[in-house]
Amino acid sequence: MKAYAMLGPGKTGWIEKERPSCGPLDAICRPIALASCTSDVHTVWENALGPRTDLTLGHEGVGEIVEVGALVKDFKPGDKVLCAAITPDWGSVEAQGGYSMHSGGMLCGWKFSNIKDGMFADFFHVNEADSNLALVPDGMDLGVAAMLSDMLPTGLHGAELADVQFGDSVCVIGIGPVGLIAVRGAVLRGAGRILAVGTRPNCVDVAKKFGATDIISYKAGPLLDQVMDMTGGAGVDRVIVAGGDCDTFDDAVSMLKPGGTIGNVNYLGEGDYIKIPRLGWGVGMGHKTIVGGLMPGGRRRLEKLASLVQNGRIDPSLIITHRRKGMDAIEEILLLMKDKPSDLIKPVTIIEW
Amino acid sequence: MKAYAMLGPGKTGWIEKERPSCGPLDAICRPIALASCTSDVHTVWENALGPRTDLTLGHEGVGEIVEVGALVKDFKPGDKVLCAAITPDWGSVEAQGGYSMHSGGMLCGWKFSNIKDGMFADFFHVNEADSNLALVPDGMDLGVAAMLSDMLPTGLHGAELADVQFGDSVCVIGIGPVGLIAVRGAVLRGAGRILAVGTRPNCVDVAKKFGATDIISYKAGPLLDQVMDMTGGAGVDRVIVAGGDCDTFDDAVSMLKPGGTIGNVNYLGEGDYIKIPRLGWGVGMGHKTIVGGLMPGGRRRLEKLASLVQNGRIDPSLIITHRRKGMDAIEEILLLMKDKPSDLIKPVTIIEW
Amino acid sequence: MKAYAMLGPGKTGWIEKERPSCGPLDAICRPIALASCTSDVHTVWENALGPRTDLTLGHEGVGEIVEVGALVKDFKPGDKVLCAAITPDWGSVEAQGGYSMHSGGMLCGWKFSNIKDGMFADFFHVNEADSNLALVPDGMDLGVAAMLSDMLPTGLHGAELADVQFGDSVCVIGIGPVGLIAVRGAVLRGAGRILAVGTRPNCVDVAKKFGATDIISYKAGPLLDQVMDMTGGAGVDRVIVAGGDCDTFDDAVSMLKPGGTIGNVNYLGEGDYIKIPRLGWGVGMGHKTIVGGLMPGGRRRLEKLASLVQNGRIDPSLIITHRRKGMDAIEEILLLMKDKPSDLIKPVTIIEW
Amino acid sequence: MKAYAMLGPGKTGWIEKERPSCGPLDAICRPIALASCTSDVHTVWENALGPRTDLTLGHEGVGEIVEVGALVKDFKPGDKVLCAAITPDWGSVEAQGGYSMHSGGMLCGWKFSNIKDGMFADFFHVNEADSNLALVPDGMDLGVAAMLSDMLPTGLHGAELADVQFGDSVCVIGIGPVGLIAVRGAVLRGAGRILAVGTRPNCVDVAKKFGATDIISYKAGPLLDQVMDMTGGAGVDRVIVAGGDCDTFDDAVSMLKPGGTIGNVNYLGEGDYIKIPRLGWGVGMGHKTIVGGLMPGGRRRLEKLASLVQNGRIDPSLIITHRRKGMDAIEEILLLMKDKPSDLIKPVTIIEW
Repeated sequence: MKAYAMLGPGKTGWIEKERPSCGPLDAICRPIALASCTSDVHTVWENALGPRTDLTLGHEGVGEIVEVGALVKDFKPGDKVLCAAITPDWGSVEAQGGYSMHSGGMLCGWKFSNIKDGMFADFFHVNEADSNLALVPDGMDLGVAAMLSDMLPTGLHGAELADVQFGDSVCVIGIGPVGLIAVRGAVLRGAGRILAVGTRPNCVDVAKKFGATDIISYKAGPLLDQVMDMTGGAGVDRVIVAGGDCDTFDDAVSMLKPGGTIGNVNYLGEGDYIKIPRLGWGVGMGHKTIVGGLMPGGRRRLEKLASLVQNGRIDPSLIITHRRKGMDAIEEILLLMKDKPSDLIKPVTIIEW
Repeated sequence: MKAYAMLGPGKTGWIEKERPSCGPLDAICRPIALASCTSDVHTVWENALGPRTDLTLGHEGVGEIVEVGALVKDFKPGDKVLCAAITPDWGSVEAQGGYSMHSGGMLCGWKFSNIKDGMFADFFHVNEADSNLALVPDGMDLGVAAMLSDMLPTGLHGAELADVQFGDSVCVIGIGPVGLIAVRGAVLRGAGRILAVGTRPNCVDVAKKFGATDIISYKAGPLLDQVMDMTGGAGVDRVIVAGGDCDTFDDAVSMLKPGGTIGNVNYLGEGDYIKIPRLGWGVGMGHKTIVGGLMPGGRRRLEKLASLVQNGRIDPSLIITHRRKGMDAIEEILLLMKDKPSDLIKPVTIIEW
Repeated sequence: MKAYAMLGPGKTGWIEKERPSCGPLDAICRPIALASCTSDVHTVWENALGPRTDLTLGHEGVGEIVEVGALVKDFKPGDKVLCAAITPDWGSVEAQGGYSMHSGGMLCGWKFSNIKDGMFADFFHVNEADSNLALVPDGMDLGVAAMLSDMLPTGLHGAELADVQFGDSVCVIGIGPVGLIAVRGAVLRGAGRILAVGTRPNCVDVAKKFGATDIISYKAGPLLDQVMDMTGGAGVDRVIVAGGDCDTFDDAVSMLKPGGTIGNVNYLGEGDYIKIPRLGWGVGMGHKTIVGGLMPGGRRRLEKLASLVQNGRIDPSLIITHRRKGMDAIEEILLLMKDKPSDLIKPVTIIEW
Repeated sequence: MKAYAMLGPGKTGWIEKERPSCGPLDAICRPIALASCTSDVHTVWENALGPRTDLTLGHEGVGEIVEVGALVKDFKPGDKVLCAAITPDWGSVEAQGGYSMHSGGMLCGWKFSNIKDGMFADFFHVNEADSNLALVPDGMDLGVAAMLSDMLPTGLHGAELADVQFGDSVCVIGIGPVGLIAVRGAVLRGAGRILAVGTRPNCVDVAKKFGATDIISYKAGPLLDQVMDMTGGAGVDRVIVAGGDCDTFDDAVSMLKPGGTIGNVNYLGEGDYIKIPRLGWGVGMGHKTIVGGLMPGGRRRLEKLASLVQNGRIDPSLIITHRRKGMDAIEEILLLMKDKPSDLIKPVTIIEW
């Protein structure tokens, strides 16, 4: 079969691969919608996962099942299915403890285009199909469905980690596609005022549509100063980090009120240490909770988030700026994500077989 | 001063009372907006609190401060203030443990028109003013501001108690004003599908505007059957009880999935026992949590909920169906609440002095 | 193979059964220690699960693996293994949501001697072996190991459900083996005073050794009166229900402070409704949380609880009053549990093959 | 009156001060037991709070009330009272939100020897007496009672922050008096294995008595290596930081399993940034929660922790190594804390008037 792969550091291209084989609990799918992700860019061009050879890329997509293992009960060939970027081993002790995304080791629930071949191929493999797939709801746009793989679960997890409560003020740092979903997630956990940090006009526009009440530009001065000014020196109740780097936490901690929480969903690609300021963190005693976490995957999560979309709580189509057709568009949507033209938020390609 | 009071069981009227005196931590306010509540009706005509003589009614309103005690720091005469129906003693051990509404004993944070005179008078008294008042935000409609006393904190508490999570299905039983706010509260905690139980057309209309996706009428058959039919036999993830009586819990428990929670904010006025069905409750082992709670009051809560209104997360004006003017309208808005004409959700009166 | 079974309502005996077959994820074990449980008594003589024919009894025991399925990675024939009474389907949506004991439906994680044959046989079957077994720690007494199937996870779950915090006063209603473990569980969640309700001298003795500070006998007067007297009218912070019936909740709710929690781990075998007193429950608004739940099973839980035993936090041998040898003793230990002689807490039999 | 004060950086001595005046909500106490704290040492000799002149030291002690304000209801002159180091303003919005220790601003619930005079004087002042004092239980040793001011609430808070669950493995870094109490706190939240990091023989001895199962010495090699070796490479479920400095978090994060929590109760006296290792923190997505917090104070907490002592759950006398008599011993107990002789854990002086 054909697969679009990372050939080596900084190099991608189409290669021939063997079709994945289907274990008794697994499913094999053809992709019917695919999206590219900044993580793919990190992987190929920024050495985020280390050197890889001929690793099929892609972890956001929708599939049509072509084969299921003998022990699969709930799905059959022909079913159109949602599939999350994270596909845990549900029987692991980590999953039993509530952290399925770390099944088998920290971050090891992330398999596609990391520890096995990804979705950018004629066929992709899904472990524990009954637990890691969900039917595409009737009438759901396939591009929207592809946003359920990573964008929605990751962005909404930011609001969960930050533990937003009714009326809280929330600062969302970074309004790329994940940060935008985090803005909507903050609304859907009860935030009052939402300060969104970003500058790209199309993203600012969607942030407002999703419920951001204030927009902060890095260009207008130091972030911390702006947040403290806008809040009369009080700071905010919650911070969701969906962009920036290890230094971002310096401001994030300092702008946070005692008793608040920082929820990080940003992949921190470089640097040795996260910068947690001693004084801003209350010399260790300010009750400022800092947590970051990989998105939860699995069938239950997919069904819950699909329910949010179907019932009109969130409209993922707002972040899809580029729609293409066919497998041939894979390279284009990947390079779009790499080059980030000013009108881009998220590209998808829809595939008919 | 003049006060509109419960004279005795089933009797109300205007009486002369002494203006309340102001302790060192207290404030005295003139009402500038008042609303009546079904609780007032329970108190007067249904013996809910036991017999009372010449107890001033009213616990929903907005005030203008006319006097503050010597230890009050943050407010001064002339300030227009939000005031919750529940005004706890914040230094109590119960408040220290997170249950301020039970300061000094179960439900004892509820003072207005219960253990002291209420707001339906020329002046009303607020204990611990710095902790129990908040400034009316600039530009907030006074009728809306009056909804922050009881309707918003109670209805939203239903969604908090039911512990709604992203994508959960929620059944809201009862869509009077509190239930309607609970519908919105469920949306603002991340509910997917919301099944609202009620029949009055004006309430049904607001329920849909607030985000209910399905409306269930008692008239169309047994509630439990309808919910199970609509969910394919699965039941719902959460139930908010905002109407009904002790028997309502029979259905509420049975429609709830294992691991779900029932949040009750309905005052249960009569009956000896809440009906929790043994089998529906999983013979004691179904992990169906049942909790009911009086709304939280206090300055922090008022400010948080005001933030929800100011930032457009909830529009309380949708539940205000009748607007009157002046202190003279108090009797009318109370009787409206008693008689519940078909076009009523919530009445307010705005007072200029 | 031989199996000790419920032949029909009220009748038990040895029968011939086919050895269970081993699916790809499963294991087949020989029992090397077995305990009987009051649940077995309910099943056979009290119609708790409905009529059953030739259902092998037993859900508490330790096994030696004789066969594993092709997909089992972590265990092999010859391994001595802990096995919980509850053996969930870990990939189910319920398990994904944190309620593995309800995988596939309310209480459906309970399979042994309920929806499949139990452990009282030459061989027993374990589903999802990698997830539902744990190695018996070196040096652990096999009788103690058998207490990890049900007594420890159930009793300790009572303390978890009741959400005991540092210094809380806790009333444990019922001090059979589960209630005794719940007493210890309350200590190990930080309880201060523990009021244990029971009368049997051997149980009272163990309750004190486990950390109960006060013993209450039903014979000395109404339970509620005694608790309120002993607490100066304040009541308790938490209640763990490990005995009694549907009526027990009347007292349990009334003795509980606002903001407190009742954790039930008692199987409620008869009656239509749990009695929740309307007034004692604060007319629906007392913030008295009521929850009951089936014990969590699985490898992670087994390993955690084994760690408590190995590190000396709890000594399950204190509840083992009768030790027998061999498969032939199964009937005796079952009848002991049925007849409950005054010196009995829990019987086990150790089997050498 | 006489007061033992910080005269300036690095200088202490007895001075004359005016007796504090008693506001309407306050109490004035004579000290009847006092303890010194490493924080006092930080304040005087390490510039931890900045330069101070003639600030009375001391925040751990027991008092006898000599005067109460007009609004105080529950205490009277002659009462012997527990008093925590942290005495919040209970009506503040921070306290309403559950963070009373930050009432009025981060860490501002800490008043004694910080923003007002401390306890090392003939008389000391207590704000909001009804909320910040508790009666010394009958028969409680006064030295033990003094441990309820700071050692117990701080050490136990470490176990609360780390969110220890049944069977968890816990590493307690630092076994000075606070770390020792944290060890006991971990036991009383359900820890299995407890790895305590420290070297002083008397502290090691108490750590074992309190329930530590393994002792780790910094002298035996890098801490992280030792923990990983002892856990077979798995790391621990929880870390309580009760010693070390900003660099300590490097190991603490790396030894923590995904899904685990670090609870810090160590005052971090110097350095710009807490070292959170990017890779050890799962590149931002490891679900390793980091939180540090000042101890909770107040009457309810005092009563809860006194209950732990009275019911035998914890024996604070094990950490009291030096007992002196009279006010004259204040200097000696302060210098003991500064010089830390090898047999010291915690010194107290008992005062009779």
